[in-house]
Amino acid sequence: MAFSEFRPLDEKTLVDYVKAVPALSSKLGGNLDDLTIKEVGDGNLNFVYIVIGSSGSLVIKQALPYIRCIGESWPMTKERAYFEAVTLKEHGRWCPNNVPEVFHFDHDHVVDCHAYLEPPHIILRKGLIAGVEYPLLAEHISDYMANTLFYTSLIYRSTTEHKKAVAEFCGNVELCRLTEQVVFSDPYKVSEYNHWTSPYLDEDAEAVRNDDGLKVEIAELKSKFCERSQALIHGDLHTGSVMVTHDSTQVIDPEFCAYGPMGFDIGAFWET
Amino acid sequence: MAFSEFRPLDEKTLVDYVKAVPALSSKLGGNLDDLTIKEVGDGNLNFVYIVIGSSGSLVIKQALPYIRCIGESWPMTKERAYFEAVTLKEHGRWCPNNVPEVFHFDHDHVVDCHAYLEPPHIILRKGLIAGVEYPLLAEHISDYMANTLFYTSLIYRSTTEHKKAVAEFCGNVELCRLTEQVVFSDPYKVSEYNHWTSPYLDEDAEAVRNDDGLKVEIAELKSKFCERSQALIHGDLHTGSVMVTHDSTQVIDPEFCAYGPMGFDIGAFWET
Repeated sequence: MAFSEFRPLDEKTLVDYVKAVPALSSKLGGNLDDLTIKEVGDGNLNFVYIVIGSSGSLVIKQALPYIRCIGESWPMTKERAYFEAVTLKEHGRWCPNNVPEVFHFDHDHVVDCHAYLEPPHIILRKGLIAGVEYPLLAEHISDYMANTLFYTSLIYRSTTEHKKAVAEFCGNVELCRLTEQVVFSDPYKVSEYNHWTSPYLDEDAEAVRNDDGLKVEIAELKSKFCERSQALIHGDLHTGSVMVTHDSTQVIDPEFCAYGPMGFDIGAFWET
Repeated sequence: MAFSEFRPLDEKTLVDYVKAVPALSSKLGGNLDDLTIKEVGDGNLNFVYIVIGSSGSLVIKQALPYIRCIGESWPMTKERAYFEAVTLKEHGRWCPNNVPEVFHFDHDHVVDCHAYLEPPHIILRKGLIAGVEYPLLAEHISDYMANTLFYTSLIYRSTTEHKKAVAEFCGNVELCRLTEQVVFSDPYKVSEYNHWTSPYLDEDAEAVRNDDGLKVEIAELKSKFCERSQALIHGDLHTGSVMVTHDSTQVIDPEFCAYGPMGFDIGAFWET
Protein backbone atom coordinates (compact mmCIF):
# COMPACT_ATOMS: atom_id res chain seq x y z
CA MET A 1 0.00 0.00 0.00
CA ALA A 2 1.31 3.41 -0.92
CA PHE A 3 1.26 6.40 1.39
CA SER A 4 2.33 8.86 -1.22
CA GLU A 5 -0.10 11.64 -0.42
CA PHE A 6 -2.31 12.90 2.36
CA ARG A 7 -5.29 10.74 3.28
CA PRO A 8 -7.19 10.38 6.52
CA LEU A 9 -6.16 7.16 8.28
CA ASP A 10 -8.69 4.75 9.73
CA GLU A 11 -8.29 1.70 11.95
CA LYS A 12 -7.50 -0.53 8.98
CA THR A 13 -5.09 1.70 7.05
CA LEU A 14 -3.36 2.58 10.30
CA VAL A 15 -1.99 -0.98 10.54
CA ASP A 16 -0.54 -0.69 7.06
CA TYR A 17 0.92 2.68 8.00
CA VAL A 18 2.60 1.31 11.13
CA LYS A 19 4.04 -1.61 9.15
CA ALA A 20 5.49 0.79 6.61
CA VAL A 21 7.30 2.96 9.19
CA PRO A 22 10.16 1.19 11.02
CA ALA A 23 10.31 3.89 13.73
CA LEU A 24 6.81 2.85 14.72
CA SER A 25 6.80 -0.90 14.12
CA SER A 26 9.96 -1.26 16.20
CA LYS A 27 8.12 0.17 19.21
CA LEU A 28 5.28 -2.37 19.03
CA GLY A 29 6.92 -5.78 19.04
CA GLY A 30 7.05 -8.61 16.55
CA ASN A 31 3.52 -9.45 15.49
CA LEU A 32 1.97 -6.47 13.80
CA ASP A 33 -1.13 -8.41 12.73
CA ASP A 34 -2.37 -8.45 16.28
CA LEU A 35 -2.43 -4.77 17.18
CA THR A 36 -5.14 -3.24 19.35
CA ILE A 37 -6.26 0.08 17.95
CA LYS A 38 -8.65 2.50 19.58
CA GLU A 39 -9.72 5.95 18.41
CA VAL A 40 -9.85 8.20 21.46
CA GLY A 41 -9.85 11.73 20.05
CA ASP A 42 -12.26 13.51 22.33
CA GLY A 43 -10.75 16.83 21.41
CA ASN A 44 -12.05 19.33 18.97
CA LEU A 45 -9.46 19.16 16.26
CA ASN A 46 -7.89 15.80 15.47
CA PHE A 47 -8.11 12.03 15.27
CA VAL A 48 -6.13 10.23 17.94
CA TYR A 49 -5.41 6.50 17.89
CA ILE A 50 -3.90 4.40 20.65
CA VAL A 51 -1.97 1.47 19.16
CA ILE A 52 -0.97 -1.39 21.46
CA GLY A 53 1.30 -4.20 20.30
CA SER A 54 2.78 -7.28 21.94
CA SER A 55 5.65 -5.37 23.56
CA GLY A 56 4.91 -1.67 23.29
CA SER A 57 2.41 1.03 22.60
CA LEU A 58 2.13 4.47 21.07
CA VAL A 59 -0.25 7.23 20.17
CA ILE A 60 -0.80 8.27 16.58
CA LYS A 61 -2.43 11.62 16.08
CA GLN A 62 -3.55 12.87 12.70
CA ALA A 63 -4.58 16.42 11.90
CA LEU A 64 -7.28 16.84 9.27
CA PRO A 65 -7.51 19.91 7.09
CA TYR A 66 -10.50 21.23 9.03
CA ILE A 67 -11.66 21.53 12.63
CA ARG A 68 -13.02 18.11 13.56
CA CYS A 69 -15.79 19.27 15.87
CA ILE A 70 -17.17 21.76 13.33
CA GLY A 71 -16.45 20.03 10.04
CA GLU A 72 -15.20 20.99 6.63
CA SER A 73 -16.95 24.36 6.92
CA TRP A 74 -14.04 25.56 9.10
CA PRO A 75 -10.86 24.65 7.22
CA MET A 76 -7.67 24.52 9.26
CA THR A 77 -4.11 24.09 8.11
CA LYS A 78 -2.61 20.66 8.65
CA GLU A 79 0.71 22.38 9.44
CA ARG A 80 -0.44 22.61 13.05
CA ALA A 81 0.64 18.97 13.50
CA TYR A 82 4.17 19.89 12.48
CA PHE A 83 4.33 22.71 15.01
CA GLU A 84 2.85 20.45 17.68
CA ALA A 85 5.55 17.82 17.07
CA VAL A 86 8.32 20.45 17.11
CA THR A 87 6.98 21.90 20.35
CA LEU A 88 6.66 18.49 22.03
CA LYS A 89 10.30 17.86 21.12
CA GLU A 90 11.48 21.29 22.28
CA HIS A 91 9.47 21.26 25.50
CA GLY A 92 10.48 17.63 26.07
CA ARG A 93 14.11 18.63 25.73
CA TRP A 94 13.79 21.01 28.68
CA CYS A 95 11.25 19.12 30.74
CA PRO A 96 11.41 15.41 29.76
CA ASN A 97 9.59 14.27 32.91
CA ASN A 98 6.41 16.07 31.95
CA VAL A 99 6.20 15.78 28.16
CA PRO A 100 5.61 12.53 26.21
CA GLU A 101 8.45 11.46 23.92
CA VAL A 102 7.95 12.05 20.19
CA PHE A 103 8.77 8.92 18.15
CA HIS A 104 7.99 10.10 14.65
CA PHE A 105 6.56 12.93 12.61
CA ASP A 106 5.36 12.46 9.04
CA HIS A 107 4.93 15.74 7.24
CA ASP A 108 3.06 14.30 4.23
CA HIS A 109 0.37 12.59 6.27
CA VAL A 110 0.55 15.07 9.16
CA VAL A 111 0.89 12.14 11.47
CA ASP A 112 2.51 12.70 14.81
CA CYS A 113 3.45 9.71 17.00
CA HIS A 114 4.42 9.88 20.61
CA ALA A 115 4.59 7.73 23.73
CA TYR A 116 1.24 6.37 24.93
CA LEU A 117 0.48 7.53 28.46
CA GLU A 118 -0.85 4.27 29.87
CA PRO A 119 -3.67 3.92 32.41
CA PRO A 120 -4.20 4.99 35.09
CA HIS A 121 -3.27 8.25 33.24
CA ILE A 122 -6.45 10.23 32.68
CA ILE A 123 -7.20 13.74 31.49
CA LEU A 124 -6.73 16.06 34.47
CA ARG A 125 -10.14 17.64 33.93
CA LYS A 126 -11.85 14.28 34.39
CA GLY A 127 -9.84 13.56 37.53
CA LEU A 128 -10.66 16.93 39.05
CA ILE A 129 -14.36 16.56 38.24
CA ALA A 130 -14.25 13.15 39.97
CA GLY A 131 -12.80 14.89 43.03
CA VAL A 132 -9.36 13.27 42.90
CA GLU A 133 -6.48 15.19 44.49
CA TYR A 134 -3.10 15.26 42.76
CA PRO A 135 -0.51 16.16 45.41
CA LEU A 136 2.37 16.59 42.90
CA LEU A 137 0.41 18.43 40.22
CA ALA A 138 1.35 21.96 41.31
CA GLU A 139 5.04 21.09 41.53
CA HIS A 140 5.05 19.24 38.19
CA ILE A 141 3.16 21.87 36.24
CA SER A 142 5.34 24.60 37.77
CA ASP A 143 8.42 22.68 36.66
CA TYR A 144 6.95 22.33 33.20
CA MET A 145 6.16 26.04 32.86
CA ALA A 146 9.39 27.23 34.46
CA ASN A 147 11.58 25.02 32.24
CA THR A 148 9.77 25.34 28.92
CA LEU A 149 9.25 29.09 29.23
CA PHE A 150 12.70 29.96 30.59
CA TYR A 151 14.75 27.86 28.16
CA THR A 152 12.85 29.03 25.08
CA SER A 153 13.15 32.71 26.01
CA LEU A 154 15.84 35.35 25.54
CA ILE A 155 16.68 35.02 29.23
CA TYR A 156 18.46 31.82 28.22
CA ARG A 157 18.86 31.97 24.43
CA SER A 158 20.89 34.19 22.14
CA THR A 159 19.14 36.68 19.89
CA THR A 160 20.21 34.63 16.86
CA GLU A 161 18.67 31.39 18.15
CA HIS A 162 15.54 33.18 19.29
CA LYS A 163 14.82 35.08 16.06
CA LYS A 164 15.31 31.89 14.04
CA ALA A 165 12.78 30.05 16.19
CA VAL A 166 10.34 32.98 16.17
CA ALA A 167 10.52 33.13 12.37
CA GLU A 168 9.70 29.42 12.09
CA PHE A 169 6.76 29.53 14.48
CA CYS A 170 5.23 32.49 12.64
CA GLY A 171 4.12 29.68 10.31
CA ASN A 172 1.60 28.45 12.89
CA VAL A 173 -0.45 31.55 12.09
CA GLU A 174 -3.78 29.76 11.58
CA LEU A 175 -3.87 28.45 15.11
CA CYS A 176 -2.76 31.80 16.52
CA ARG A 177 -5.63 33.44 14.65
CA LEU A 178 -8.01 30.92 16.19
CA THR A 179 -6.77 31.80 19.69
CA GLU A 180 -7.09 35.50 18.94
CA GLN A 181 -10.66 34.92 17.82
CA VAL A 182 -11.95 32.53 20.47
CA VAL A 183 -10.05 33.91 23.45
CA PHE A 184 -9.70 37.62 22.75
CA SER A 185 -12.49 38.63 20.34
CA ASP A 186 -15.60 36.43 20.11
CA PRO A 187 -16.54 36.30 23.81
CA TYR A 188 -16.94 40.08 23.93
CA LYS A 189 -19.35 40.47 21.01
CA VAL A 190 -22.16 38.67 19.22
CA SER A 191 -20.52 35.75 17.46
CA GLU A 192 -21.63 32.52 15.78
CA TYR A 193 -19.67 30.16 18.01
CA ASN A 194 -20.51 31.69 21.39
CA HIS A 195 -22.43 29.34 23.69
CA TRP A 196 -23.90 29.89 27.11
CA THR A 197 -26.74 28.47 29.15
CA SER A 198 -29.69 30.44 27.85
CA PRO A 199 -31.85 32.11 29.09
CA TYR A 200 -30.23 31.86 32.55
CA LEU A 201 -26.95 33.52 31.59
CA ASP A 202 -28.31 35.89 28.91
CA GLU A 203 -27.90 38.90 31.18
CA ASP A 204 -24.34 37.98 32.11
CA ALA A 205 -23.40 37.52 28.48
CA GLU A 206 -24.92 40.88 27.63
CA ALA A 207 -23.10 42.54 30.54
CA VAL A 208 -19.80 41.25 29.14
CA ARG A 209 -20.66 42.58 25.67
CA ASN A 210 -21.47 46.01 27.11
CA ASP A 211 -18.45 46.37 29.39
CA ASP A 212 -16.22 48.84 27.56
CA GLY A 213 -13.61 48.91 30.33
CA LEU A 214 -13.24 45.15 30.07
CA LYS A 215 -12.93 45.37 26.30
CA VAL A 216 -10.10 47.90 26.56
CA GLU A 217 -8.22 45.61 28.93
CA ILE A 218 -8.82 42.60 26.71
CA ALA A 219 -7.57 44.59 23.71
CA GLU A 220 -4.34 45.29 25.59
CA LEU A 221 -3.94 41.61 26.46
CA LYS A 222 -4.70 40.66 22.84
CA SER A 223 -2.00 43.03 21.65
CA LYS A 224 0.50 41.40 24.01
CA PHE A 225 -0.54 37.95 22.82
CA CYS A 226 -0.15 38.90 19.15
CA GLU A 227 3.02 40.95 19.41
CA ARG A 228 5.21 39.68 22.24
CA SER A 229 7.51 36.81 21.23
CA GLN A 230 8.75 36.07 24.72
CA ALA A 231 8.90 32.27 24.84
CA LEU A 232 7.60 29.14 23.09
CA ILE A 233 4.25 28.85 24.85
CA HIS A 234 1.99 25.78 24.84
CA GLY A 235 -0.89 28.06 23.88
CA ASP A 236 -3.75 25.90 25.19
CA LEU A 237 -2.68 24.89 28.68
CA HIS A 238 -5.99 24.02 30.30
CA THR A 239 -6.88 20.91 32.32
CA GLY A 240 -7.88 19.10 29.11
CA SER A 241 -4.26 19.29 27.89
CA VAL A 242 -2.74 17.50 30.88
CA MET A 243 -2.79 13.78 31.67
CA VAL A 244 -2.18 12.67 35.22
CA THR A 245 -1.79 9.85 37.69
CA HIS A 246 -1.03 10.19 41.38
CA ASP A 247 2.68 10.43 40.52
CA SER A 248 2.84 11.64 36.94
CA THR A 249 1.88 14.84 35.12
CA GLN A 250 2.17 14.90 31.32
CA VAL A 251 1.42 17.91 29.14
CA ILE A 252 0.00 17.06 25.71
CA ASP A 253 -1.61 18.79 22.71
CA PRO A 254 0.54 21.90 22.20
CA GLU A 255 -0.79 22.54 18.69
CA PHE A 256 -1.71 26.12 19.57
CA CYS A 257 1.97 26.69 20.30
CA ALA A 258 3.42 30.09 19.47
CA TYR A 259 6.10 32.51 20.52
CA GLY A 260 4.01 34.57 22.88
CA PRO A 261 3.95 36.03 26.39
CA MET A 262 4.80 33.57 29.18
CA GLY A 263 1.80 34.86 31.10
CA PHE A 264 -0.56 33.30 28.56
CA ASP A 265 0.31 29.74 29.65
CA ILE A 266 0.58 30.63 33.32
CA GLY A 267 -2.75 32.47 33.32
CA ALA A 268 -4.51 29.80 31.26
CA PHE A 269 -3.57 27.07 33.71
CA TRP A 270 -4.45 29.11 36.79
CA GLU A 271 -7.81 30.03 35.32
CA THR A 272 -8.94 26.46 34.56
CA MET B 1 32.50 42.90 -17.59
CA ALA B 2 30.84 40.23 -15.51
CA PHE B 3 29.09 40.92 -12.20
CA SER B 4 28.59 37.31 -11.34
CA GLU B 5 29.56 37.45 -7.69
CA PHE B 6 29.97 39.89 -4.84
CA ARG B 7 32.74 42.47 -5.16
CA PRO B 8 33.12 45.90 -3.68
CA LEU B 9 32.41 48.53 -6.34
CA ASP B 10 34.65 51.53 -6.89
CA GLU B 11 34.22 54.66 -8.97
CA LYS B 12 35.41 52.87 -12.10
CA THR B 13 33.52 49.59 -11.82
CA LEU B 14 30.41 51.50 -10.82
CA VAL B 15 30.13 52.88 -14.36
CA ASP B 16 30.25 49.37 -15.79
CA TYR B 17 27.67 48.31 -13.25
CA VAL B 18 25.27 51.12 -14.18
CA LYS B 19 25.68 50.29 -17.88
CA ALA B 20 24.83 46.66 -17.21
CA VAL B 21 21.59 47.42 -15.36
CA PRO B 22 18.82 48.95 -17.52
CA ALA B 23 16.78 50.04 -14.46
CA LEU B 24 19.70 52.32 -13.58
CA SER B 25 21.01 53.45 -16.96
CA SER B 26 17.49 54.51 -17.99
CA LYS B 27 17.43 56.97 -15.08
CA LEU B 28 20.65 58.72 -16.10
CA GLY B 29 20.15 59.71 -19.72
CA GLY B 30 21.90 58.83 -22.95
CA ASN B 31 25.64 59.29 -22.46
CA LEU B 32 26.87 56.98 -19.74
CA ASP B 33 30.51 57.74 -20.41
CA ASP B 34 30.11 61.16 -18.86
CA LEU B 35 28.75 60.35 -15.43
CA THR B 36 29.74 62.28 -12.32
CA ILE B 37 30.37 59.93 -9.42
CA LYS B 38 31.07 60.95 -5.85
CA GLU B 39 31.52 58.72 -2.79
CA VAL B 40 29.71 60.42 0.10
CA GLY B 41 29.34 57.67 2.69
CA ASP B 42 29.96 59.50 5.92
CA GLY B 43 28.10 56.82 7.83
CA ASN B 44 29.56 54.00 9.80
CA LEU B 45 28.53 51.04 7.75
CA ASN B 46 28.46 51.41 3.97
CA PHE B 47 29.79 52.95 0.79
CA VAL B 48 27.43 55.47 -0.79
CA TYR B 49 27.88 56.85 -4.32
CA ILE B 50 26.00 59.71 -5.92
CA VAL B 51 25.78 59.18 -9.67
CA ILE B 52 24.74 62.11 -11.87
CA GLY B 53 24.07 61.72 -15.59
CA SER B 54 22.93 64.06 -18.34
CA SER B 55 19.25 63.80 -17.47
CA GLY B 56 18.97 62.16 -14.08
CA SER B 57 20.67 61.09 -10.90
CA LEU B 58 20.59 58.36 -8.31
CA VAL B 59 22.26 57.04 -5.19
CA ILE B 60 23.98 53.67 -5.15
CA LYS B 61 24.65 52.22 -1.74
CA GLN B 62 26.72 49.11 -1.21
CA ALA B 63 26.93 47.17 2.02
CA LEU B 64 30.25 45.49 2.74
CA PRO B 65 30.52 42.32 4.81
CA TYR B 66 31.88 44.26 7.80
CA ILE B 67 31.28 47.52 9.62
CA ARG B 68 33.01 50.20 7.56
CA CYS B 69 34.11 52.44 10.44
CA ILE B 70 35.68 49.57 12.38
CA GLY B 71 36.91 47.30 9.62
CA GLU B 72 37.03 43.61 8.91
CA SER B 73 37.48 42.87 12.60
CA TRP B 74 33.71 43.38 13.03
CA PRO B 75 32.02 41.29 10.34
CA MET B 76 28.47 42.23 9.48
CA THR B 77 26.01 40.43 7.25
CA LYS B 78 25.43 41.97 3.84
CA GLU B 79 21.76 40.98 4.14
CA ARG B 80 21.16 44.27 5.88
CA ALA B 81 21.04 45.97 2.46
CA TYR B 82 18.19 43.70 1.43
CA PHE B 83 16.19 44.59 4.52
CA GLU B 84 16.95 48.26 4.02
CA ALA B 85 15.62 48.14 0.46
CA VAL B 86 12.48 46.24 1.52
CA THR B 87 11.85 48.76 4.29
CA LEU B 88 12.36 51.77 2.03
CA LYS B 89 9.80 50.24 -0.34
CA GLU B 90 7.32 49.41 2.42
CA HIS B 91 7.69 52.73 4.21
CA GLY B 92 7.60 54.53 0.86
CA ARG B 93 4.33 52.78 0.07
CA TRP B 94 2.69 54.34 3.11
CA CYS B 95 4.53 57.66 3.19
CA PRO B 96 5.83 58.39 -0.34
CA ASN B 97 6.38 62.10 0.42
CA ASN B 98 9.03 61.38 3.03
CA VAL B 99 10.89 58.32 1.74
CA PRO B 100 13.16 58.26 -1.37
CA GLU B 101 11.98 55.98 -4.17
CA VAL B 102 13.84 52.66 -4.58
CA PHE B 103 14.88 52.08 -8.21
CA HIS B 104 16.71 48.79 -7.90
CA PHE B 105 18.01 46.19 -5.48
CA ASP B 106 20.68 43.68 -6.43
CA HIS B 107 20.91 40.83 -3.97
CA ASP B 108 24.18 39.40 -5.32
CA HIS B 109 26.13 42.64 -5.05
CA VAL B 110 24.06 43.98 -2.13
CA VAL B 111 23.60 47.15 -4.09
CA ASP B 112 20.62 49.30 -3.30
CA CYS B 113 19.73 52.20 -5.59
CA HIS B 114 17.30 54.95 -4.78
CA ALA B 115 16.43 58.52 -5.75
CA TYR B 116 19.19 61.07 -5.14
CA LEU B 117 18.03 63.80 -2.78
CA GLU B 118 19.48 66.79 -4.57
CA PRO B 119 20.92 69.89 -2.91
CA PRO B 120 19.91 71.87 -0.97
CA HIS B 121 19.00 68.62 0.86
CA ILE B 122 21.42 68.16 3.74
CA ILE B 123 21.58 65.84 6.71
CA LEU B 124 19.25 67.23 9.37
CA ARG B 125 21.95 67.03 12.02
CA LYS B 126 24.19 69.37 10.03
CA GLY B 127 21.33 71.80 9.49
CA LEU B 128 20.43 71.85 13.17
CA ILE B 129 24.06 72.35 14.18
CA ALA B 130 24.19 75.28 11.75
CA GLY B 131 21.16 76.73 13.52
CA VAL B 132 18.71 76.38 10.64
CA GLU B 133 15.03 76.08 11.53
CA TYR B 134 12.84 73.63 9.61
CA PRO B 135 9.22 74.77 10.05
CA LEU B 136 7.69 71.66 8.46
CA LEU B 137 10.00 69.11 10.05
CA ALA B 138 7.73 68.22 13.00
CA GLU B 139 4.72 67.75 10.74
CA HIS B 140 6.64 65.72 8.17
CA ILE B 141 8.36 63.43 10.63
CA SER B 142 5.07 62.91 12.50
CA ASP B 143 3.42 61.96 9.21
CA TYR B 144 6.28 59.56 8.52
CA MET B 145 6.06 57.87 11.91
CA ALA B 146 2.25 57.81 12.02
CA ASN B 147 1.94 56.26 8.55
CA THR B 148 4.83 53.81 8.59
CA LEU B 149 4.08 52.56 12.11
CA PHE B 150 0.29 52.38 11.79
CA TYR B 151 0.16 50.64 8.41
CA THR B 152 2.78 48.02 9.29
CA SER B 153 1.10 47.12 12.59
CA LEU B 154 -1.76 44.81 13.55
CA ILE B 155 -3.96 47.86 14.01
CA TYR B 156 -4.16 47.90 10.20
CA ARG B 157 -2.93 44.50 9.05
CA SER B 158 -4.32 41.00 9.37
CA THR B 159 -2.55 38.47 11.58
CA THR B 160 -1.60 36.47 8.48
CA GLU B 161 0.08 39.42 6.75
CA HIS B 162 1.77 40.49 9.96
CA LYS B 163 3.25 37.11 10.91
CA LYS B 164 4.58 36.64 7.40
CA ALA B 165 6.35 39.99 7.54
CA VAL B 166 7.64 39.39 11.06
CA ALA B 167 9.06 36.02 9.99
CA GLU B 168 10.92 37.65 7.09
CA PHE B 169 12.41 40.46 9.15
CA CYS B 170 13.67 38.02 11.79
CA GLY B 171 16.41 37.58 9.15
CA ASN B 172 17.82 41.03 9.96
CA VAL B 173 19.07 39.56 13.23
CA GLU B 174 22.66 40.84 12.98
CA LEU B 175 21.59 44.47 12.95
CA CYS B 176 19.09 43.89 15.76
CA ARG B 177 21.88 42.36 17.82
CA LEU B 178 23.98 45.46 17.15
CA THR B 179 21.18 47.71 18.42
CA GLU B 180 20.73 45.53 21.49
CA GLN B 181 24.43 45.83 22.19
CA VAL B 182 25.09 49.51 21.50
CA VAL B 183 21.78 50.92 22.75
CA PHE B 184 20.74 48.59 25.57
CA SER B 185 23.89 46.87 26.90
CA ASP B 186 27.28 48.52 26.27
CA PRO B 187 26.54 52.02 27.67
CA TYR B 188 25.77 50.57 31.11
CA LYS B 189 28.96 48.59 31.57
CA VAL B 190 32.66 48.64 30.72
CA SER B 191 32.82 47.97 27.01
CA GLU B 192 35.39 48.24 24.23
CA TYR B 193 33.41 50.63 22.04
CA ASN B 194 32.29 53.09 24.72
CA HIS B 195 33.58 56.63 24.22
CA TRP B 196 33.22 59.71 26.34
CA THR B 197 35.17 62.91 26.95
CA SER B 198 37.73 61.77 29.49
CA PRO B 199 38.59 62.71 32.20
CA TYR B 200 35.79 65.32 32.34
CA LEU B 201 32.92 62.84 32.09
CA ASP B 202 34.58 59.91 33.88
CA GLU B 203 32.42 60.39 36.95
CA ASP B 204 29.23 60.58 34.93
CA ALA B 205 30.10 57.42 33.05
CA GLU B 206 30.83 55.66 36.32
CA ALA B 207 27.55 56.88 37.81
CA VAL B 208 25.66 55.32 34.88
CA ARG B 209 27.52 52.04 35.36
CA ASN B 210 26.63 51.97 39.07
CA ASP B 211 22.97 52.91 38.75
CA ASP B 212 21.14 49.63 39.37
CA GLY B 213 17.70 51.22 39.14
CA LEU B 214 18.55 52.55 35.69
CA LYS B 215 19.83 49.14 34.64
CA VAL B 216 16.58 47.45 35.66
CA GLU B 217 14.58 49.95 33.60
CA ILE B 218 16.90 49.54 30.62
CA ALA B 219 16.56 45.75 30.90
CA GLU B 220 12.78 46.15 30.66
CA LEU B 221 13.10 48.40 27.62
CA LYS B 222 15.56 45.94 26.05
CA SER B 223 13.10 43.11 26.56
CA LYS B 224 10.39 45.15 24.80
CA PHE B 225 12.76 45.94 21.95
CA CYS B 226 13.73 42.29 21.49
CA GLU B 227 10.32 40.72 21.96
CA ARG B 228 7.58 43.09 20.80
CA SER B 229 6.85 42.83 17.07
CA GLN B 230 4.50 45.78 16.95
CA ALA B 231 5.38 47.51 13.67
CA LEU B 232 8.11 47.76 11.03
CA ILE B 233 10.32 50.34 12.73
CA HIS B 234 13.14 52.29 11.08
CA GLY B 235 15.39 51.29 13.97
CA ASP B 236 17.90 54.16 13.74
CA LEU B 237 15.75 57.27 13.45
CA HIS B 238 18.15 59.97 14.60
CA THR B 239 18.94 63.31 12.94
CA GLY B 240 21.67 61.63 10.88
CA SER B 241 19.03 59.49 9.12
CA VAL B 242 16.96 62.41 7.84
CA MET B 243 17.70 64.73 4.91
CA VAL B 244 15.98 68.09 4.77
CA THR B 245 15.38 71.31 2.93
CA HIS B 246 13.06 74.10 4.00
CA ASP B 247 10.16 72.24 2.35
CA SER B 248 11.22 68.60 2.24
CA THR B 249 11.92 65.90 4.86
CA GLN B 250 13.26 62.54 3.64
CA VAL B 251 14.00 59.58 5.88
CA ILE B 252 16.92 57.42 4.73
CA ASP B 253 19.10 54.56 5.99
CA PRO B 254 16.60 52.15 7.60
CA GLU B 255 19.06 49.26 7.66
CA PHE B 256 18.46 48.68 11.38
CA CYS B 257 14.82 48.02 10.51
CA ALA B 258 12.98 45.43 12.55
CA TYR B 259 9.56 44.50 13.78
CA GLY B 260 9.77 46.20 17.13
CA PRO B 261 7.93 48.57 19.45
CA MET B 262 6.68 51.79 17.82
CA GLY B 263 8.08 53.72 20.78
CA PHE B 264 11.64 52.90 19.70
CA ASP B 265 11.41 55.15 16.62
CA ILE B 266 9.36 57.82 18.35
CA GLY B 267 11.71 57.94 21.34
CA ALA B 268 14.85 57.84 19.21
CA PHE B 269 13.77 60.86 17.20
CA TRP B 270 12.64 62.83 20.23
CA GLU B 271 15.88 62.15 22.01
CA THR B 272 18.18 63.38 19.23
